[in-house]
Amino acid sequence: MSETNLQIQSLLKEDNTLEIALVEVPVPSPGADDVVVRVDAAPINPSDLGLLFGAADMSTATVGGDADRPVITATVPENGMRMMAGRVGQALAVGNEGAGVVVAAGESDAAQALLGRTVGIFGGEMYSQYRRANVMQCLPLHEGTTAVQGASCFVNPMTALGMVETMRMEEHTALVHTAAASNLGQMLNRICLADGVPLVNIVRKPEQEKILADLGAAHVVNSSADDFMAALTAALQTTGATLAFDAIGGGRLVSHILSAMESVAVSNMSEYSRYGSAVHKQVYIYGALDVAPTTLQRSFGFAWGVGGWLLPNFLQRAGTERMLRMRQRVADEISTTFASHYSREVSLAEALTLEAMGGYGRQATGEKYLIRPQQ
Amino acid sequence: MSETNLQIQSLLKEDNTLEIALVEVPVPSPGADDVVVRVDAAPINPSDLGLLFGAADMSTATVGGDADRPVITATVPENGMRMMAGRVGQALAVGNEGAGVVVAAGESDAAQALLGRTVGIFGGEMYSQYRRANVMQCLPLHEGTTAVQGASCFVNPMTALGMVETMRMEEHTALVHTAAASNLGQMLNRICLADGVPLVNIVRKPEQEKILADLGAAHVVNSSADDFMAALTAALQTTGATLAFDAIGGGRLVSHILSAMESVAVSNMSEYSRYGSAVHKQVYIYGALDVAPTTLQRSFGFAWGVGGWLLPNFLQRAGTERMLRMRQRVADEISTTFASHYSREVSLAEALTLEAMGGYGRQATGEKYLIRPQQ
Repeated sequence: MSETNLQIQSLLKEDNTLEIALVEVPVPSPGADDVVVRVDAAPINPSDLGLLFGAADMSTATVGGDADRPVITATVPENGMRMMAGRVGQALAVGNEGAGVVVAAGESDAAQALLGRTVGIFGGEMYSQYRRANVMQCLPLHEGTTAVQGASCFVNPMTALGMVETMRMEEHTALVHTAAASNLGQMLNRICLADGVPLVNIVRKPEQEKILADLGAAHVVNSSADDFMAALTAALQTTGATLAFDAIGGGRLVSHILSAMESVAVSNMSEYSRYGSAVHKQVYIYGALDVAPTTLQRSFGFAWGVGGWLLPNFLQRAGTERMLRMRQRVADEISTTFASHYSREVSLAEALTLEAMGGYGRQATGEKYLIRPQQ
Repeated sequence: MSETNLQIQSLLKEDNTLEIALVEVPVPSPGADDVVVRVDAAPINPSDLGLLFGAADMSTATVGGDADRPVITATVPENGMRMMAGRVGQALAVGNEGAGVVVAAGESDAAQALLGRTVGIFGGEMYSQYRRANVMQCLPLHEGTTAVQGASCFVNPMTALGMVETMRMEEHTALVHTAAASNLGQMLNRICLADGVPLVNIVRKPEQEKILADLGAAHVVNSSADDFMAALTAALQTTGATLAFDAIGGGRLVSHILSAMESVAVSNMSEYSRYGSAVHKQVYIYGALDVAPTTLQRSFGFAWGVGGWLLPNFLQRAGTERMLRMRQRVADEISTTFASHYSREVSLAEALTLEAMGGYGRQATGEKYLIRPQQ
């Protein structure tokens, strides 16, 4: 094991600046039930950017330090400082998930059993060369699965599976998904095709329609098209979907989805009710591609819900048994259903260049970076 | 029993007019498990107005017919016709609840046992002189309780109790209520005082603050005051309330409540999380005093929910045992906890005068009409 351990840290300072730096930290040593993983691959997910960039205005970013130990500095607007007040002065390690080889293990049997295994980990601080993890945080990958293949084995796979499990737990029978051409959306499409779950994919552009159609999606509707509400309503009528997951958050799309669901439910009623249908319609907002307010017209009766959805909160509610079953499926199907594709691989230092940050910061469909901390 | 049975009916016609008329219908006869109730008193609740007035522009209302059989006619705007398309051409009987004496009963033991009893009923069509009801729809009132005392034994009492029961079912420990000086709000305040449930009352006017303070409410905050957010946050910190019921619906109040709840939850966290707290915060919208859209700023993490709340849907979910326990409490405390007060009593015909409609149509605090169908 190396003596050095490089790590990306993000620090919000009282003088309204954000500092993102590659710093040297001690190589961790494991407790009894811990392992130490040499991190070989860690993806940059949209969900990592909030912690990495804070609320900084990244158009003001400048590079300091040197090529091996870069330091990015950017200014943070006043309202961003207020939103992030809780993290001022703390150098926070970044990176929700990754994979690598267990190079040290604590004395417990469970920890020792992982020695030499390639595992996926979820839990933060993954943009590091070495990372300590409790055995329960580790997903042992099958023999032959590489760290690159396993790097994205938590956030997208468990989120996509979590959507389908939420559907089952809350007794819906079909799903709606927005921003559906995303890496996550394509994964959800594969799960739904495999499990026979009807899925209505909502996208914004014709080329995104094509991506999903080429992947065998039966229902793809374009929210920018003139006939959007009619097409959505028809797809909801066919699938019976009363549950949606929305990555966008802002604007009126959530309201439109609920209205379309309600119009289907009302069309199936035999008797008028001024309270609308009794069919429960639910939208979970799990992302914030649009940070504008969510505007709900409430033209969809009283049997409806809108809520936030976050993977850790869901897993808490789902319970250990369900969570372990989901994880096992991810390990079993990591190179098929749950395969991720990356547009570019970068080292820890390369991830902190303005050019790379401009790339992964755009969150564009198909653009996904993989950090290789050992390079 | 009389041979005639007068009933208020509301009819939306294809020519964009609404017709509200007092019409004669047959006196119903009971099935085996039914009773026929002579309706002596039925309140006009805000929840009745939607069915009664449809989406008509009541400023255009004119009176026809004669004083004994009035016919109100009003025009309906085009968007109202669209919203109400499901009821065009159907003469709908109005009135969610009421009370009276059982004057006929079917052959079942349960039905026979109610003969001569004064009962409360929920289920529509109460602005009638006689109303058939299944025995399960009837709440037998205690000896000595009058129909006037029992007329409002469902909508407000069961809604207020339903809020407290929802709190228990969803494992919250305190409540927030908006438009809290209403008849319903005062009832909820009495229940919470009796049950030791901390309640944060939100009102809009100083005189409403006074009403609740005089009733012993510990936490009353005014959403029109400059220090509203600070006062609300302090009350939430003291009470620990993470569940709110909102009668207003439109605007930013729901968002403000969730933000204040989240700021309390975050202030109790030991470690920063960019996803906010894991404390689930819930607001149920059960009314629409403001029909404008609900605007959610989503500055309250991911552990939140907003949803519609409707008494029949809640009772479905609560189950029969809980519902019967709630009903029994209403019967036991109908002249104390669940007492309703009326500003005016009107006959069926008097309810269909422009002057009366202007009165109860305003939905002002303290203004509540009681229809006496036998007068």
